[in-house]
Amino acid sequence: MATFFTPGPAQLYPTFEKHLRHFLENDLGSISHRSQTYRDIHAFTVAQIRQLLNVPDSHAVLFLGSASEIWERIILSTVRNRSFHLVNGSFSKKFFQYAAAAGKTPAKIEKPLGEGFFYKELDVPHGTELLCITHNETSSGVQFPVEDIHRLKDDHPSVMLAVDMVSSAPYPMLDYNRVDTAFFSVQKAFGLPAGLGVWIVNEKCLLKANQLRDVDQISIGAHHDLPTLWKNAQKNETPATPNVMLIYLLGKIAEDMNAYGVERIRKETEEKAQLLYQFAENTKGFSPFVEEDNFRSKTVAVINTELPAQEIIGQLRQKGLIVGSGYGDKKSSQIRIANFPATNRAQIEQLILELANI
Amino acid sequence: MATFFTPGPAQLYPTFEKHLRHFLENDLGSISHRSQTYRDIHAFTVAQIRQLLNVPDSHAVLFLGSASEIWERIILSTVRNRSFHLVNGSFSKKFFQYAAAAGKTPAKIEKPLGEGFFYKELDVPHGTELLCITHNETSSGVQFPVEDIHRLKDDHPSVMLAVDMVSSAPYPMLDYNRVDTAFFSVQKAFGLPAGLGVWIVNEKCLLKANQLRDVDQISIGAHHDLPTLWKNAQKNETPATPNVMLIYLLGKIAEDMNAYGVERIRKETEEKAQLLYQFAENTKGFSPFVEEDNFRSKTVAVINTELPAQEIIGQLRQKGLIVGSGYGDKKSSQIRIANFPATNRAQIEQLILELANI
Repeated sequence: MATFFTPGPAQLYPTFEKHLRHFLENDLGSISHRSQTYRDIHAFTVAQIRQLLNVPDSHAVLFLGSASEIWERIILSTVRNRSFHLVNGSFSKKFFQYAAAAGKTPAKIEKPLGEGFFYKELDVPHGTELLCITHNETSSGVQFPVEDIHRLKDDHPSVMLAVDMVSSAPYPMLDYNRVDTAFFSVQKAFGLPAGLGVWIVNEKCLLKANQLRDVDQISIGAHHDLPTLWKNAQKNETPATPNVMLIYLLGKIAEDMNAYGVERIRKETEEKAQLLYQFAENTKGFSPFVEEDNFRSKTVAVINTELPAQEIIGQLRQKGLIVGSGYGDKKSSQIRIANFPATNRAQIEQLILELANI
Repeated sequence: MATFFTPGPAQLYPTFEKHLRHFLENDLGSISHRSQTYRDIHAFTVAQIRQLLNVPDSHAVLFLGSASEIWERIILSTVRNRSFHLVNGSFSKKFFQYAAAAGKTPAKIEKPLGEGFFYKELDVPHGTELLCITHNETSSGVQFPVEDIHRLKDDHPSVMLAVDMVSSAPYPMLDYNRVDTAFFSVQKAFGLPAGLGVWIVNEKCLLKANQLRDVDQISIGAHHDLPTLWKNAQKNETPATPNVMLIYLLGKIAEDMNAYGVERIRKETEEKAQLLYQFAENTKGFSPFVEEDNFRSKTVAVINTELPAQEIIGQLRQKGLIVGSGYGDKKSSQIRIANFPATNRAQIEQLILELANI
């Protein structure tokens, strides 16, 4: 079996197969999504996610098909006209494009791939309803500082704030008193196969969705609209048949993470990231793509390579180590290394050793 | 292990675990959805579905999160204002409600639970853009005759026609020259865990979606809009990270079904259904809910019970046989028995034997 350092789908969590076996042995793939057995699984997973990410009762934890679907649902539920997007890579750009495709008039501040945002540059336009921040830009390995997320809310208390933490949760310690909605998908740092997005969303968003639908008479979507998702979540159910398998597995892996300790996971993530960036800084033929230290992602390290990236990726593959290529036109000049909880320090050290041998 | 005769999630297909093991042993839970390995899986599954359901090249086979999501995408892609719905149960009603929630002005003809539609009653209103038919109403066990689906298209060639075959595919033999779009989910007759919807859709729908977006300037959705899904499907990819595991497993189970023979599956489905209905007709304490023989579902048999349904369900459960309760207010007076390919004739006979003993 190879070890995957790819930024999603990624290495499966070490306990994944054990939990999957339990799922199958207990016929959980066949249970009704309107049964108490299902409701218990649903409630358990929500409780574990609440504990892991410190999500208060003001926010619901909802299950959808993917983080991309959640982009659309956030826009439809919370924006009448104006969202504002900090764009510095492919995924933050897609969030912006979704808003336009949904018939809104989004605005953006845009930076080249690899650059981050300094707080003083962030001029939120008057009339912004929703401010969209990508905590971790998977395409470029740029992180947005969590303290700046919180400052933005403090400075713009009437603007709703959405945080894309697709490829970083559970790393960022968000204060949900200052974050209206956040979301992630499970095939990144939770070490699961793809097919589930998790939407954390507060009552303020729900009220806005109701207002858009009932007062402004704007369509807020037909499938997975926020009021219906919210109502079902009160009963620990979902509107349609959900991905019971991944909801179950997410709960068990979150439980494992809680037992291990989220603080320990965060500390180890930082230590492993430091090893990767130190290697890139100190080794001929490699350099960190992101120059500003404070913007370097702790969960997806992007490294420039002098050799063609495909050659490096190919050599590592022969050792059973799978890393990602650069995104888009950086495909041949960068490698992307996921630093998720499913790979431990020893595995990162082995990867660095093999990289150094190239 | 129990045997599930529940109408979805349902009994897992007998080869499910074998294929899942292969998926895990080959690290397929970690592969990139932009890799050739993924594209090969995607192409394989599409080819197997095409063969099984006899889908011509005029139609794309697309992967989404659920059949419910597909309801919304069909409405957004093909309807400017007017869809027309044949409503005779909870699921056909939801398709209608989705159209209204999406901001359209749908019309419907509605029948009570348990009744079907006679062709001569079907008066399609002038100006209808999309005609929505539920081939198998899971809530009531009513089927819509396939020959009437085809006649409807012959009589209304300019109206687009959508067929919900969520809980019947691969049973209905649709002629895709007369069906513009059809869809199903995998947790019913394909014997997989929930989390994947399959959308079969022709170029006429794509052209309409482009027209709605580009000429009429109506939002056709931001996530999983048809033109983007279609474009990605040409490369055997999906716009966002898909449920690789279920796409892989669906392909392998469709391959098994092709090897077994879809005609044989259809014939056995009819034979097993006949056993169930004969039992219900001839046994004191039971009767078929659907009176008109031609409307009785071959894949979900709904049976009235004189004893409280929960008592029957409880007794069967003790024998390891799980059947569904009636839908909604029929919960205590009906049982629902799925007759999917994952349960064979011997298992249906055992179920009937235990029912007779009650």
